[in-house]
Amino acid sequence: MKITVATRLVYACRPGTHVTAVVQAARSHDQRVLGERLTLGAGTRLAEEADAEGIRWLRGEVPERFELGYEAEVDNGARLLLPAEGRQWHRTELPLAVLPFLLPSRFCPSDLFVRFACREFGGIEDGVGRVMAIADWIAAHVDYVSGVSTPESDAAHTFTLRAGVCRDFTHLGITMCRALGIPARAVSCYAAALAPPDFHAVMEVFLDGAWWIVDLTRLAPVEGMVRICHGRDAADIAFLTTDQACELVEQTVTATAPDRASTNP
Amino acid sequence: MKITVATRLVYACRPGTHVTAVVQAARSHDQRVLGERLTLGAGTRLAEEADAEGIRWLRGEVPERFELGYEAEVDNGARLLLPAEGRQWHRTELPLAVLPFLLPSRFCPSDLFVRFACREFGGIEDGVGRVMAIADWIAAHVDYVSGVSTPESDAAHTFTLRAGVCRDFTHLGITMCRALGIPARAVSCYAAALAPPDFHAVMEVFLDGAWWIVDLTRLAPVEGMVRICHGRDAADIAFLTTDQACELVEQTVTATAPDRASTNP
Amino acid sequence: MKITVATRLVYACRPGTHVTAVVQAARSHDQRVLGERLTLGAGTRLAEEADAEGIRWLRGEVPERFELGYEAEVDNGARLLLPAEGRQWHRTELPLAVLPFLLPSRFCPSDLFVRFACREFGGIEDGVGRVMAIADWIAAHVDYVSGVSTPESDAAHTFTLRAGVCRDFTHLGITMCRALGIPARAVSCYAAALAPPDFHAVMEVFLDGAWWIVDLTRLAPVEGMVRICHGRDAADIAFLTTDQACELVEQTVTATAPDRASTNP
Amino acid sequence: MKITVATRLVYACRPGTHVTAVVQAARSHDQRVLGERLTLGAGTRLAEEADAEGIRWLRGEVPERFELGYEAEVDNGARLLLPAEGRQWHRTELPLAVLPFLLPSRFCPSDLFVRFACREFGGIEDGVGRVMAIADWIAAHVDYVSGVSTPESDAAHTFTLRAGVCRDFTHLGITMCRALGIPARAVSCYAAALAPPDFHAVMEVFLDGAWWIVDLTRLAPVEGMVRICHGRDAADIAFLTTDQACELVEQTVTATAPDRASTNP
Repeated sequence: MKITVATRLVYACRPGTHVTAVVQAARSHDQRVLGERLTLGAGTRLAEEADAEGIRWLRGEVPERFELGYEAEVDNGARLLLPAEGRQWHRTELPLAVLPFLLPSRFCPSDLFVRFACREFGGIEDGVGRVMAIADWIAAHVDYVSGVSTPESDAAHTFTLRAGVCRDFTHLGITMCRALGIPARAVSCYAAALAPPDFHAVMEVFLDGAWWIVDLTRLAPVEGMVRICHGRDAADIAFLTTDQACELVEQTVTATAPDRASTNP
Repeated sequence: MKITVATRLVYACRPGTHVTAVVQAARSHDQRVLGERLTLGAGTRLAEEADAEGIRWLRGEVPERFELGYEAEVDNGARLLLPAEGRQWHRTELPLAVLPFLLPSRFCPSDLFVRFACREFGGIEDGVGRVMAIADWIAAHVDYVSGVSTPESDAAHTFTLRAGVCRDFTHLGITMCRALGIPARAVSCYAAALAPPDFHAVMEVFLDGAWWIVDLTRLAPVEGMVRICHGRDAADIAFLTTDQACELVEQTVTATAPDRASTNP
Repeated sequence: MKITVATRLVYACRPGTHVTAVVQAARSHDQRVLGERLTLGAGTRLAEEADAEGIRWLRGEVPERFELGYEAEVDNGARLLLPAEGRQWHRTELPLAVLPFLLPSRFCPSDLFVRFACREFGGIEDGVGRVMAIADWIAAHVDYVSGVSTPESDAAHTFTLRAGVCRDFTHLGITMCRALGIPARAVSCYAAALAPPDFHAVMEVFLDGAWWIVDLTRLAPVEGMVRICHGRDAADIAFLTTDQACELVEQTVTATAPDRASTNP
Repeated sequence: MKITVATRLVYACRPGTHVTAVVQAARSHDQRVLGERLTLGAGTRLAEEADAEGIRWLRGEVPERFELGYEAEVDNGARLLLPAEGRQWHRTELPLAVLPFLLPSRFCPSDLFVRFACREFGGIEDGVGRVMAIADWIAAHVDYVSGVSTPESDAAHTFTLRAGVCRDFTHLGITMCRALGIPARAVSCYAAALAPPDFHAVMEVFLDGAWWIVDLTRLAPVEGMVRICHGRDAADIAFLTTDQACELVEQTVTATAPDRASTNP
């Protein structure tokens, strides 16, 4: 599906601040960037570097007013729904590069949830059905509420509070999957039809030799997503990381699919 | 029911250690101490003081080998099971002295569980039925396992881990009750028929104007319990608190009812 | 010192909400209420009950617009500064009623800080000097910053973050004192010369047989404080507790001493 | 330096258990494996795979008695001490592959320590001096004590408790470095002269374009270390990970340098 995405970020920074911005559509095996334009404010120079998986890292020192605009047209192929079948691979079969996504991370302390996950989901046949059971459980037991979680909140906090936003839903799902031995990671994306429009965080699970996106919030269709970055959890996929505190001045995110549109603010 | 209880504690302490020991059967409105004997090792002198609720506090400086023996025959009246009926009082009706047992405490962070408790138990008619639903939920979702929790573990930890011992079960139950506005506290006791015999920790809830014991572990019958102390959570009801680290040398606990007996080790 | 205090609280509540409000100057042994007036909005009836220490609890069901006004003239005697001398009592000497203030509580997990406190403050002679060392340490190592802590933050969180507000400073101080065997509790008060004016939370320590107020934020003079309530930590001394979520509409707090004044907003 | 290392692991496992074992000396740019022998018990077949950095992963299904023996002679080149000079690179200069080691991880929540780290170490000139200041601070403020931490303990827990073992010291050091923008990671190794002998965990920091090992426990000389694996924290560098609970039956670790030897048990 062809999707048009755009973002505009403006931050007030202290002199000498270095930033890492990851906002560009990934040039990954499963999506093509048909055209794009990056616009930087006066005095801003960022170096772009892509990693082996097509994630693009912009880095550099920024002026006191840091402005970044980005527009792209992306063909996300046919971003596929998790298929009805799909087996969980045991750790011996997994590609080495997938192993880290079995491990606990800052916001996904899966080591604490082995007993819960086995009790709640262990009786379900492994693979897609088990992931769907986790997604259903989260939909049934966690409320989407802003202002309850903080940037420090991990999945154990969300599990207790039973409320959070997309980032928290994603962390909880990843945590449950890892506790069951299913590799899972976090993906940042543009999402057509997300309301209100914003960067979105979703889960990706590895089943039957491939990664599959699951939106645990159920707020946006997988078919309308444009992948930006993936990593162990929200810490890895931040769209902006700075080495000094900065102040958000403006943030706009847009994603439009032929028949789906979302715009903010 | 007449119950015979006994304990023997031996600790190795550093010179100058002060201790608080709370191991004597409470002289509370609902039980009578028919006879008792406290035996202290050579060089140990403890002062005994009872509070308004009949809890008895032994305090003093102890020698390097601290030995305490206690035996008693107690009539616990007819330690009553939670009745089938029993309404939850709202905070305006509660005696002032009961209000603290609505608040979060060290090991019972009930403030974090309001949403969970309301989702899970809010639909059940308040009062005894709701408490029973909490007890059933804990029995169904938490495993009794030693060595999983630590003295630092609070109810949020147990809620995540889904395993613990009597202290953890009690904390989890108290937390859920308080999150729903039901006053709840922790009680230390001797318990006939507990296997292996040990000091036991149970929950007490305030319904319909009275306190009722609930053993969330379901390991010992309420009728065979002899109350020692109550408080907000395990921190308040420790049978021994010292102002310096001491080493346990020996601990024996016994409780015998006419037709129920438990002895350790 | 004669101090004039006032507050006005307006909340939007759901029908059937029960509240506990503790905003009146305590009629405690160390202060006299010379005159006062409680004004409740239309449809609000609260029952007042004082406990044995002169803390006054207002409780009742409130209408959808809950309004409470309170004004008082109070003689706080001569609210005394911690004296230069003053010995720490060991646990055997303490009045029974003081013992709970040695224990960890929801926001003061003093059990976790024994090693730190002994390392940092154990070398200082016990008593007033040690409490002053704790106060100096907090002043030197923690920043007064709003918006860093949340209502869930305990002293361990503040110890890590090194920032917080009066409540957090108080919890950290109490935690350190208890870890050293010094009874400590939280006190809510009106404070003349606090800027901006608000309810204030301070620590109280038990030394040499009496309780002494210490303001760890150093934002207001102890002599200008009017005590409202005390307890184990912030959970016990909330000026308003409700059994359903309510929304703050307006809050004004004023405290005026002859030569000190503070008014908000 | 030539170092002879050996380990023997015996575990009791349930049928069908899959394991990942990472115990072999890394074939990394800075050390050469001169000779080695891997011995597996009857019925055990593990596949070996090396990643791009020479870390070697053994994976496979194991029998109920899982035995693994490993011996190697390794030339660790001249495992270098952190040099006196060495600048911290800002995030724009760092190789992409180093960026993840700036981020918080499961046991290193560096996001919580920015204020502390800047207050405590921010005044020291960046680079080697700052890392040495962190190492000195840890040596001065944290006790090496077994049995205080658990496998769940993260650096915030250690920071509060002020005690732990090599893993905890490493986590705390990594956390402080990352909070200051210094990339840091965990390394598992054999360590000659470690007493009692065991697998060891140390920190590695990225300064002046290279990684440097720092042993925050100061229990073993860097020159006698043989690198096994590195990662974000202890979760990444476990010498054995299993998909079902297993029971340790026997573990022996040996590392001998010409003039340094350590053997256990």
